[in-house]
Amino acid sequence: MNLLDAASRGKTTAAMKEVARDEGVAVARIAALMKRGRLVIPMNRLRRGRVRAVGIGDGLRTKVNANVGTSARASDRAFERKKVRAAIEAGADAVMDLSTGRDIDSTLAAVLDTSTVPVGTVPVYQAAIEAGDPTRMTARSILDAVRRHARMGVDFLTLHCGIRQAAVPLLRKRLVGVVSRGGAFLLKWMACHGADNPLYTHYDEVLDICREYDVTISLGDGLRPGCLADATDAAQISELKNLGRLAARALKRGVQTMIEGPGHVPIDQIERNVRLEKQYCHGAPFYVLGPIVTDVAPGYDHITSAIGGALAAWHGANFLCYVTRREHLGLPDIDDVREGVYAARIAAHAADVARGLKGARNWDDEMSRARVGLDWDRMFELALDPKTAGKLKGKTPARGEDTCSMCGKYCSMKIFRDL
Amino acid sequence: MNLLDAASRGKTTAAMKEVARDEGVAVARIAALMKRGRLVIPMNRLRRGRVRAVGIGDGLRTKVNANVGTSARASDRAFERKKVRAAIEAGADAVMDLSTGRDIDSTLAAVLDTSTVPVGTVPVYQAAIEAGDPTRMTARSILDAVRRHARMGVDFLTLHCGIRQAAVPLLRKRLVGVVSRGGAFLLKWMACHGADNPLYTHYDEVLDICREYDVTISLGDGLRPGCLADATDAAQISELKNLGRLAARALKRGVQTMIEGPGHVPIDQIERNVRLEKQYCHGAPFYVLGPIVTDVAPGYDHITSAIGGALAAWHGANFLCYVTRREHLGLPDIDDVREGVYAARIAAHAADVARGLKGARNWDDEMSRARVGLDWDRMFELALDPKTAGKLKGKTPARGEDTCSMCGKYCSMKIFRDL
Repeated sequence: MNLLDAASRGKTTAAMKEVARDEGVAVARIAALMKRGRLVIPMNRLRRGRVRAVGIGDGLRTKVNANVGTSARASDRAFERKKVRAAIEAGADAVMDLSTGRDIDSTLAAVLDTSTVPVGTVPVYQAAIEAGDPTRMTARSILDAVRRHARMGVDFLTLHCGIRQAAVPLLRKRLVGVVSRGGAFLLKWMACHGADNPLYTHYDEVLDICREYDVTISLGDGLRPGCLADATDAAQISELKNLGRLAARALKRGVQTMIEGPGHVPIDQIERNVRLEKQYCHGAPFYVLGPIVTDVAPGYDHITSAIGGALAAWHGANFLCYVTRREHLGLPDIDDVREGVYAARIAAHAADVARGLKGARNWDDEMSRARVGLDWDRMFELALDPKTAGKLKGKTPARGEDTCSMCGKYCSMKIFRDL
Repeated sequence: MNLLDAASRGKTTAAMKEVARDEGVAVARIAALMKRGRLVIPMNRLRRGRVRAVGIGDGLRTKVNANVGTSARASDRAFERKKVRAAIEAGADAVMDLSTGRDIDSTLAAVLDTSTVPVGTVPVYQAAIEAGDPTRMTARSILDAVRRHARMGVDFLTLHCGIRQAAVPLLRKRLVGVVSRGGAFLLKWMACHGADNPLYTHYDEVLDICREYDVTISLGDGLRPGCLADATDAAQISELKNLGRLAARALKRGVQTMIEGPGHVPIDQIERNVRLEKQYCHGAPFYVLGPIVTDVAPGYDHITSAIGGALAAWHGANFLCYVTRREHLGLPDIDDVREGVYAARIAAHAADVARGLKGARNWDDEMSRARVGLDWDRMFELALDPKTAGKLKGKTPARGEDTCSMCGKYCSMKIFRDL
């Protein structure tokens, strides 16, 4: 029985119990939210018991995904393993392997083998690359790639099922057009063949595969905006509505889904983006990429996306895909991955505090108690990233010292405490 | 005649014209806003023509301040000069010298000499340090420090005039107490002498000095919260109300003021903080420190503050004091300063775009046009920090190359353009 079937019948499984324990939420509540499509636990049937049960959805902590993967230019399996380990060590709740380099299968096998958290992929990449060109894909080769990844144990699959011919004219007004690779591949195929999106026309078969392996679908936003100017436009919203319909069909078929979202969004449009997703997609978990809130800061998109991610999660987004500082410039190295995860975790936690998630602020309060006690050891213990904090603090003054290292003897907290 | 007097009489000065030109706003509008206390141009009479005219307030771009300064442990004038240069090169609109080390006067002279942007200080630091202990300050020594800084040419002075005895009992409920150094010095003095805050009781004299040198007062928030748990509490708000009254007195006396704000604020309280400031302080420019939105991330407070700063500025804060990644750990080095300024500038610009400031999004759109054209040279030209972007991009693939460096031949924008 797959997870959603169990939830629908009011049964609780080991994965649900693990999520319930981890989040401090009653397991019955987890099951009830899953049944309504408002919470997912991405876990391939083949990986049960071998991967952490991570709940994504209403009333849970905001989760963070880290993208890894090779490109045609940089294809090194050992390096991808390192990235996965660095991401998980930094606290990523999931990793996606977006490889487009040589040997996609063996890289994915390595990622699956290394990761203790759910793994996601975008099978259409492999279909396009193995075909040599997206136009040479077939509906069959795309579905084969989906099945292959499901069979390898992938826990969630990004599938751009919502791109339809009708949206294509809406793209003409865009400044940047399409920045989703999967979206671009499918649009190119559709243009060449004058046919609708195979992931849409064969959606029932997609659902069958996902049902068989208990794979969660992450309904991809192939038409997501690639710049502030294109945010929340007609093309994006038309696709979002399609995704809502597809999510309802999946729920009926016993397949878990979440919905992917942008991308590039100015601060004032973020709340609206979340509300529209919740409205059109019946409250399905919302998985956003960033969003980054300005286009002008290549080299700092871990920061532009932390701003957007914090706002999105505060307003109800459930899952943040990190953006590293190398975005728009190249593929991340290990340090970029680590820092990207921490930046996204800051956004997630700050949002959890802001939306009043039970217990979220305890962490902050513990840190504040350590600060007022000038207890440096405890501060480092509690720090999001103890290593970086320790490195920046340095050795002088000694950690045990009774003042703040910024102010020395003029430490305001010490003065106040002494009063 | 000082700037505010001129504005009040409907006269426009060179500084107002410079701000008007820089911001693309009519000079009459600048003068009208100054007259109402809603816009300041911090520029000491002695520095006219020697420092950039920077407007802070309604309808203008959000500005960014970088703190520099020595401590008892690290006192090196040449290093402070370097920090000032790095901050200005990275785009800081103002710098504050918060030195508490040896030779405060000569460090300040070096900062004033180096800075092409307005310089701020906190004179009570010097008064306390020269007295050996805050309790040994006198009303006279504090006012002397104020006058000394004004006479040296400082453009804006942080003065914690709003701390009153009445607020002290409100601090008892706090988790962290007081984290403003100036605030702590004054509270210690008040407790020891059983007397009210000299900067409050001698406020008329303070105004006279500032009027004489045309110094802008930055009314300090000595009771700002030092952790999420203490945010927006009674002590903070009682001081804010005092600051509003003091701002009105300054306006009447022809002295420009802005209001300082927190600090540590959860995301959901940021809008309220800005609204309360605008309400209690008659729309005076709001100068916030961060705010940081979670306490758990020492080593990443440039990010926690970029989130808070973006939100604050979107809701109407006018001036962001950067927070570097070294906050809570030590004093920043050159790289920390540079990165801190960029992070704050991201927050400021993203907010300017979100509040629909005329022309703000042009920068983003230009970058997006360069991206869709795969015009790497132009992208680097436009980047917030071209050096960092260039370093991260590396040399391969060549900048002239016709694909995105993340996706190689699978570049979605290229595919879309080719359609």
